[in-house]
Amino acid sequence: MRIEIDRKAGQPLYDQVAASIREAVLSRQIAGGARLPATRTLAQDLGIHRHTVAAAYRRLEAEGLLRTAVGAGTFVVEALPATEGERGFSWEELLRHRAGPEPDPLAYLRTGRVPVPSDPIRLNGAVPDSREFPMDGFITCMREVLDGADPHLLEYGPPEGYEPLRAWIAEWLADWGVEGVEAERVFIISGSQQGIDLLARLFLTPGDRVLLEAPTYTGAFMVLREAGARMVTIPIAAQGLRMDELRRVLGREPIKLIYVMPCYQNPTGTSMDPLTRQELLALAHGRGLPIIEDHYTSPLHYWGPPPRSLLSEDPEGRVIHLGTFSKFLFPGLRLGWMVVPRPLCQPLRRLRWATDLSSGTFTQQLLERFCRSGRLTDHLDRLRKINGRRLKVMLHALEKHFPAEARWTRPEGGMTLWVELPEMIDAAELLREAASQGVLFAPGPAFYPNGGGRSGLRLSFNREDEKRIRRGVRLLGSLVKERMRHRRPTDRTGGDAVPFL
Amino acid sequence: MRIEIDRKAGQPLYDQVAASIREAVLSRQIAGGARLPATRTLAQDLGIHRHTVAAAYRRLEAEGLLRTAVGAGTFVVEALPATEGERGFSWEELLRHRAGPEPDPLAYLRTGRVPVPSDPIRLNGAVPDSREFPMDGFITCMREVLDGADPHLLEYGPPEGYEPLRAWIAEWLADWGVEGVEAERVFIISGSQQGIDLLARLFLTPGDRVLLEAPTYTGAFMVLREAGARMVTIPIAAQGLRMDELRRVLGREPIKLIYVMPCYQNPTGTSMDPLTRQELLALAHGRGLPIIEDHYTSPLHYWGPPPRSLLSEDPEGRVIHLGTFSKFLFPGLRLGWMVVPRPLCQPLRRLRWATDLSSGTFTQQLLERFCRSGRLTDHLDRLRKINGRRLKVMLHALEKHFPAEARWTRPEGGMTLWVELPEMIDAAELLREAASQGVLFAPGPAFYPNGGGRSGLRLSFNREDEKRIRRGVRLLGSLVKERMRHRRPTDRTGGDAVPFL
Repeated sequence: MRIEIDRKAGQPLYDQVAASIREAVLSRQIAGGARLPATRTLAQDLGIHRHTVAAAYRRLEAEGLLRTAVGAGTFVVEALPATEGERGFSWEELLRHRAGPEPDPLAYLRTGRVPVPSDPIRLNGAVPDSREFPMDGFITCMREVLDGADPHLLEYGPPEGYEPLRAWIAEWLADWGVEGVEAERVFIISGSQQGIDLLARLFLTPGDRVLLEAPTYTGAFMVLREAGARMVTIPIAAQGLRMDELRRVLGREPIKLIYVMPCYQNPTGTSMDPLTRQELLALAHGRGLPIIEDHYTSPLHYWGPPPRSLLSEDPEGRVIHLGTFSKFLFPGLRLGWMVVPRPLCQPLRRLRWATDLSSGTFTQQLLERFCRSGRLTDHLDRLRKINGRRLKVMLHALEKHFPAEARWTRPEGGMTLWVELPEMIDAAELLREAASQGVLFAPGPAFYPNGGGRSGLRLSFNREDEKRIRRGVRLLGSLVKERMRHRRPTDRTGGDAVPFL
Repeated sequence: MRIEIDRKAGQPLYDQVAASIREAVLSRQIAGGARLPATRTLAQDLGIHRHTVAAAYRRLEAEGLLRTAVGAGTFVVEALPATEGERGFSWEELLRHRAGPEPDPLAYLRTGRVPVPSDPIRLNGAVPDSREFPMDGFITCMREVLDGADPHLLEYGPPEGYEPLRAWIAEWLADWGVEGVEAERVFIISGSQQGIDLLARLFLTPGDRVLLEAPTYTGAFMVLREAGARMVTIPIAAQGLRMDELRRVLGREPIKLIYVMPCYQNPTGTSMDPLTRQELLALAHGRGLPIIEDHYTSPLHYWGPPPRSLLSEDPEGRVIHLGTFSKFLFPGLRLGWMVVPRPLCQPLRRLRWATDLSSGTFTQQLLERFCRSGRLTDHLDRLRKINGRRLKVMLHALEKHFPAEARWTRPEGGMTLWVELPEMIDAAELLREAASQGVLFAPGPAFYPNGGGRSGLRLSFNREDEKRIRRGVRLLGSLVKERMRHRRPTDRTGGDAVPFL
């Protein structure tokens, strides 16, 4: 240990001594448990007063680096901090295990530092068009709720949610053919995202394997990663999960949980057919596996009723059902729901309490009033017409402007479809070019937890009007054709199969 | 393997065969990987048609229990489900690692099945009195916001929160002496509870040790337990943490995170004095330790300004500051804030996104309007008068009605105080008796993560009016005195010291 004293420095002497010793301790030049010189000895060595050394020791004791045993002397403590005190402290180091990509698919843009013109055509984002929000009905409901001026509106509420809203959701699900859901099994959550988070925390310990569709919802695998889960992906086919693959994987790997979107899947817009649903339930049944069904957008069906939910076909109670208002009503209210088997109610209640107590009581009451007044039904009728037309326009524009080599899904509901381009096209590169010309979309890799999707695009058809959808698709089509002219084609069959097309 | 066939049963034969094999496979009577008899052989043995056996095999294949290798035969798959399929499936089993107590301190009542009279005097709960909510001002703000009828009110918002509300909070903190907080470092969260949850998830991996005060906020250790943390507790003294204990613990155990409430601590109502704050910061500084400061109720100061926050004394950026509106405004809005050092902004943004995307945009705008209009300041002025009077009334009633052997804290702000009874009194038992007579409080053990607090009570003084506070304390006092008369006193000094009294 080398202690340097500078009598001309402004720093007090005891402070200089303390700094030298601190440095020596934190850099392990003096080992944990080692005895320091007696104050008298060190003072003589340094040619300073004994009290100065004692003050330095006291200071380091207060910092928890030294301890004094009466009669035995002063020692370095045994348990020194793992991060080397001040010199080594860094938030980045503490958060090293947290490194990871941005959630937003448009983060692909940021790396390229692409200047995007104002008011771009947003074919990105599974987000409703706020210009179609039923504001008048909402304001009327709010005025009605406020006329009561009931302060209970604004008190803490129970973790499971506002009872009348839970009851309304149970009734509403019955209208869709999901019978026998008691209000006690409906939990109000802030949306599907929170639902997946809560379930991941209930069921998973780090290293557990979760089975997902590929491609799938980005937010799902982000939060499953937070729980330390390993993603096992099953490609989806036009009729839903590739069951042959699923069986192969289940025979090989211990899976803890299945997460699927059986209805207008995000990003592809495809739905599971009845046979696939049945087989999936039989497999889960045989193996004792819980299934999370994310029914995030089922009320948005455009040409006939939506596919049945797994929950409605699950008498054994294997399925946990997630729903959200964010895709067809007001995402800014942050409200969704979850239907759970009875044994989950108490653990979920407890976990929700620990996480953030509950959803807001005020917004739950507004929403309940809005729904029960019949306004949700009216709004959905209207939205189905608007979105259905936009979907048709997009499909037509793809037909007209995209090259023959491209393929895409033809959803019957939801908000998005998937385009698979020839594999010479890199979707992230295409995005940078398209964005600079004022058209945004979500590039394929954002939807593959274990890599893939290089030449895929997710296009949203419910956020822009018909004219702008036409314009956006036309521009994308011309950019794709141009790129194809300038690249040497590679053999399509050599790449990954895209079974849902 | 024993296969029983009942030709008189209504169940198809192939189904009976499949059920027997399934049973044998799931109960491990047939090992994973084992070869099954050829369909012809088994059919002969059972005296049934070969196609019936083949149908049973196909069914089990569809369930993922068998696999057929062409030319080699039919085998049990290698990776059988860990939970033994249908027979062994139980949600309770899947959630075994989740067992734990209810968050609510009143759960102590449920075990006793005590009938509580209607409208009990609620000295439990750190909850504001909703009769004092500023409803008129809130309704005015809401009407103003709605007159704009801006659909953006109800869109998705950024994870970090509504920018004008973040800016207002940064300015407001400066009014309290917390200077230099840039709006970019303010995150809107749903309350302290979510703040602790997010931080636990950012910093902790299972087994990590967190340092807490004892007693402390129940919700804090509940959520830290969710993160797999081990609780290390430091008793608090009248002037805050017992620093001698803290130094001793830091010299002995590797601590990852410190969680404290330096201002009107929950449950005791005590605050850290300036020297303790300084020493705590020096220790954290020397050891590279982050400190979470939960300033959950600092605007509720009744006799002079609140103690300074750690954040305001922390030029090194070690402190993460949590605040909430729930303790003095509308808990049902679910809004609070968090001030973080700059390197945490991106990881926190990402984690919040994965957890539940963001707080509601609509409620954030309402709150911002309410705060910026000056109504929050007016409301706080009023609330300080009301709560201060209630605190005085409670202290006076304790003096008058509680036995000389009891001791209690004398907070200068906040919502709760702590009573320590002679150790012959069991607070949970007392609660059952008090509840049956119409008075509720929170029993001591609810605030000790590692046990303790047997004879402690937390009393809330801000939820009932003065008359009912008097009545509640009088009843409690008489119950305590009665119990003391009927029990043999034990030696007080033999029990745990209660250093904050």
